[in-house]
Amino acid sequence: MNVSHPSVHPVEAPPPLVDDDGLRVTRLQMKVIQGMPGTIGGLLLRFCQFAYAIVSLVVMATTNDFPSVTAFCYLVAAVGLQSVWSLSLAILDIHALLVGRTLQNYRVVSLFSIGDGVTSTLTFAAACASAGITVLIGNDLGLCAQNHCKQFETATAMAFLSWFTALPSFLLNFWSLSSR
Amino acid sequence: MNVSHPSVHPVEAPPPLVDDDGLRVTRLQMKVIQGMPGTIGGLLLRFCQFAYAIVSLVVMATTNDFPSVTAFCYLVAAVGLQSVWSLSLAILDIHALLVGRTLQNYRVVSLFSIGDGVTSTLTFAAACASAGITVLIGNDLGLCAQNHCKQFETATAMAFLSWFTALPSFLLNFWSLSSR
Repeated sequence: MNVSHPSVHPVEAPPPLVDDDGLRVTRLQMKVIQGMPGTIGGLLLRFCQFAYAIVSLVVMATTNDFPSVTAFCYLVAAVGLQSVWSLSLAILDIHALLVGRTLQNYRVVSLFSIGDGVTSTLTFAAACASAGITVLIGNDLGLCAQNHCKQFETATAMAFLSWFTALPSFLLNFWSLSSR
Repeated sequence: MNVSHPSVHPVEAPPPLVDDDGLRVTRLQMKVIQGMPGTIGGLLLRFCQFAYAIVSLVVMATTNDFPSVTAFCYLVAAVGLQSVWSLSLAILDIHALLVGRTLQNYRVVSLFSIGDGVTSTLTFAAACASAGITVLIGNDLGLCAQNHCKQFETATAMAFLSWFTALPSFLLNFWSLSSR
């Protein structure tokens, strides 16, 4: 019994540690939210961002008159940056999933959060500017006969979808950053 | 001494409560961040948002040809909404400062966060669309002689400034929401 008692007391000592572990378990549960870096949901979001951005880029770049409008050039640049960023993070997600790492380091999440914030804001700004001009050409001036309205609309819509799928990535990263 | 001992023990019991209080103190320190609702910084941000939005609205509305462009009409609507929202929250901030309340209720901060997110996104979208068209008229087509380029540029710049001052309000609310 004397042997069992000291073995019980060291077991009773850890409760604060177990409490601390309990906190760590909550932190581990943060990682379970699908859509964060290193999860299947996060990888899917990245692929959607990349796919929409690259379709937008290709559709806009195949029109021969896009360089004459500054906003359309800016759209090509912004979705180009978005596609490069999303592809890089998708590759990182695949690596994390294959190796079994979590990507929940504070610095890494800060970097992802800032990067997502910047690229999604640029994509959204480009999409809004293109939408303004597309509506001006199509509805206000009625010049769709001389312009590639369909392509402009498609590229703009794809850029909006790319932003729309980039938003959860940013908000989840920002949320996990601030809830530490 | 027997009297003092029991009085010492109840003092020793509270440490977990003091710890808990310690957590509450950190939560109180969250409120001290200037720029959150119910602070002088927050009130200043609201006034800047309101002032820039109302200047943008007035400058755009005084041009006689803005209704012919959808994006400019949208800008007027968006900065109108932004000015109403910012003015309402400024009044709420003044009330909170005068009465000495904190406005750090979870539901209130959620509401502010969603409202700030929606209004600032709409203002940013309108500013980007107007910027796209202003650059198209001024730089790409060179039609400034027939259009009110100066007014369009001023209204767009003011809308961007209004968004820029709305962003800290949204991020601080979102941050305080997630760090609970």
